[in-house]
Amino acid sequence: MSIFLRTVTVEEAIRAAKGIAPHPGREEVPLEEAAGRVLAEAVSADVDIPAFDRSVVDGYALRASDTIGAGESIPSLLTLLGTVRMGQAPDLVMRAGECAYIPTGGALPPGADAVVMIEHTEIIDDQVLVKRPVAPGENLIMRGEDFARGIPVLCVGRRLTPPDIGVLAAAGCHTVPVFTCPSIGVISTGNELIPVREIPTGSQIRDSNSAMIGAYLRHAGCTATLYGVIPDERRTLQDALEKALSRNDAVVLSGGSSKDDRDLCADIVGQLGEVLVHGVAIAPGKPTIIGRCEGKPVLGLPGHPASALVVLDRIGRPLLAAMTGEKARTVCTRHAKLAQNIPSVRGREDYIRVRLDGGMAFPLFGKSGLLNTLVQSDGLVCIPAGREGLEAGESVEVIMW
Amino acid sequence: MSIFLRTVTVEEAIRAAKGIAPHPGREEVPLEEAAGRVLAEAVSADVDIPAFDRSVVDGYALRASDTIGAGESIPSLLTLLGTVRMGQAPDLVMRAGECAYIPTGGALPPGADAVVMIEHTEIIDDQVLVKRPVAPGENLIMRGEDFARGIPVLCVGRRLTPPDIGVLAAAGCHTVPVFTCPSIGVISTGNELIPVREIPTGSQIRDSNSAMIGAYLRHAGCTATLYGVIPDERRTLQDALEKALSRNDAVVLSGGSSKDDRDLCADIVGQLGEVLVHGVAIAPGKPTIIGRCEGKPVLGLPGHPASALVVLDRIGRPLLAAMTGEKARTVCTRHAKLAQNIPSVRGREDYIRVRLDGGMAFPLFGKSGLLNTLVQSDGLVCIPAGREGLEAGESVEVIMW
Repeated sequence: MSIFLRTVTVEEAIRAAKGIAPHPGREEVPLEEAAGRVLAEAVSADVDIPAFDRSVVDGYALRASDTIGAGESIPSLLTLLGTVRMGQAPDLVMRAGECAYIPTGGALPPGADAVVMIEHTEIIDDQVLVKRPVAPGENLIMRGEDFARGIPVLCVGRRLTPPDIGVLAAAGCHTVPVFTCPSIGVISTGNELIPVREIPTGSQIRDSNSAMIGAYLRHAGCTATLYGVIPDERRTLQDALEKALSRNDAVVLSGGSSKDDRDLCADIVGQLGEVLVHGVAIAPGKPTIIGRCEGKPVLGLPGHPASALVVLDRIGRPLLAAMTGEKARTVCTRHAKLAQNIPSVRGREDYIRVRLDGGMAFPLFGKSGLLNTLVQSDGLVCIPAGREGLEAGESVEVIMW
Repeated sequence: MSIFLRTVTVEEAIRAAKGIAPHPGREEVPLEEAAGRVLAEAVSADVDIPAFDRSVVDGYALRASDTIGAGESIPSLLTLLGTVRMGQAPDLVMRAGECAYIPTGGALPPGADAVVMIEHTEIIDDQVLVKRPVAPGENLIMRGEDFARGIPVLCVGRRLTPPDIGVLAAAGCHTVPVFTCPSIGVISTGNELIPVREIPTGSQIRDSNSAMIGAYLRHAGCTATLYGVIPDERRTLQDALEKALSRNDAVVLSGGSSKDDRDLCADIVGQLGEVLVHGVAIAPGKPTIIGRCEGKPVLGLPGHPASALVVLDRIGRPLLAAMTGEKARTVCTRHAKLAQNIPSVRGREDYIRVRLDGGMAFPLFGKSGLLNTLVQSDGLVCIPAGREGLEAGESVEVIMW
């Protein structure tokens, strides 16, 4: 199905992009390198966690029934048998009327069924006065209470956070099955572009999109290979795209800000494969191209940096998430009150750069060719296609860069 | 000033931690590796950006004065001189009554002062009908409008985002001055702990804190070296701390969940240097230690994973930010409505793990020794020290992991 030259909604564009995402491969990495990677298999605990009934306080292990009715004025009197040692199997057996000192993390001795906090006791020689009743199980984590053996601790598709790494360690998962990182080729097109190292003369400008897109892709969990600046010439651009396709899982093109160049990009994508989307109802970013060549996604971004980044984040990101195997992504947002009215046009999604200051979001109305409003901005505010603008004082969710 | 054994507020603990942060060094990295690093010097543009007056649309370059009074019924009639080529210095000079085709990104020819969009024109042979007046400067980005040469484009202390990388590229900054990443040594203490590769027996548990803390530190822009599990023995622990201090800029200890072990850690820190804080009014996480040995910060975290992570994020993070040279950090948060009452104790900051679902935050009341509530949680909700709890339906800001 080719939607050539028909403008589609952002939702349709995202669906088209996700529909052509190739599935990621799998690999095993050491636990120390697994943070930020996406889990490729559910992981189960190989033992009960914890593997024993464990005290969560410093106190005395005892039988709860021995403390019934205990209080400040009539404490229960128990005989101190000894001390539970950390990391060792308990060598004490608790009987009625007995107790043992147990540190936080210690294993409950056989016969005991609760722990009383040291704060609620008093010790006199080898006798312990217990001044509060405790219930069976009190101040304990029971064997397998955290995770029972064989129960999955984490599911497929999770991008691993530091807490996840902790639970994988507890489950004994010292090498972690993860999805491979998709490799993305990045091409900037435009006869006016020169590499960053060169000094612009005449009407040249430096290629800022390659480095920016590369940084974005790496941050999104991909590897990025930059193929530099390619002039807007059919043969050269086609060769560059074929080369990038042969070595990567997908290609991101940027540039072609003028109509002729945009058409050239779309033409070449159409010739090497198919154009699925050409034109999205989003501002900035209308001249976006989504295509598939050799079974691989090709995303054509506008040349203006702000437009390129908005499209990469709003439409490219779901594609990248699908390619990394990520199930759900936490978008980093901040709540703010809009400081000024923002006008918009019904029928397209508008993304306005905003600066945050003291809980207020200040719109930065700038031409999409400017970098300064981009770096002054903390993120984006979306104006849905169904609205004609947002009003000062409205509560907005800022999508942070 | 030693605050030994006196519980301090979270704010005081943060101030103490930040006060002992060593200053980071500097290094130069290639632009492609600079994302996520912290800028060590203000960077200025070496040329005006853009270096010429630039069209932001496809249209005709002309003199604005030639379009005064132009409309659908009485268009201005201009002679088409030719086409501006991308990336080349303009070879056309515009006089009154003349115009030239200019693509988006093209350089305005001398003599012209505005661009009319192609949508508002009609072409007949070599004559262009302009059906709308344009103002001087319309549809242009003027030379230096984005960034003037010599003006700083980014300031010291900024953690570089993808947009920042774009602006550095435009400024010609192909190697970037950044602060060095602080190196942090990580030690887990506890006689009950065993390495992740081993199978626990008796009352042993696997060391999940080392891997979790290492992942957190790397995510925060540090390098982390794990020194593994060290038993709670004075000599061994002191040797391990001295070794980690000699090879790193700071050390994070975790463990000592029982009172005796906590005292051992504080004793050793006091012997090798000074204990600044021992006990913070935070839950979970009260038995936190902040010290300085050999001029380097030592942060002693509680042994329970949830407690360790809360303290590392709330108190350790400002220390780490100071060590990385980062000026302001964007904490990733989400707005939600609290699904249930949360009781708390006045006088301490409580951090409750919550799970997010459909805009609601569900508290996970779990013992701080449990990992499952930690991985089920999306983040933390803070109950300030001055409040006795939060009520269901209250609007809360969730600090995301």
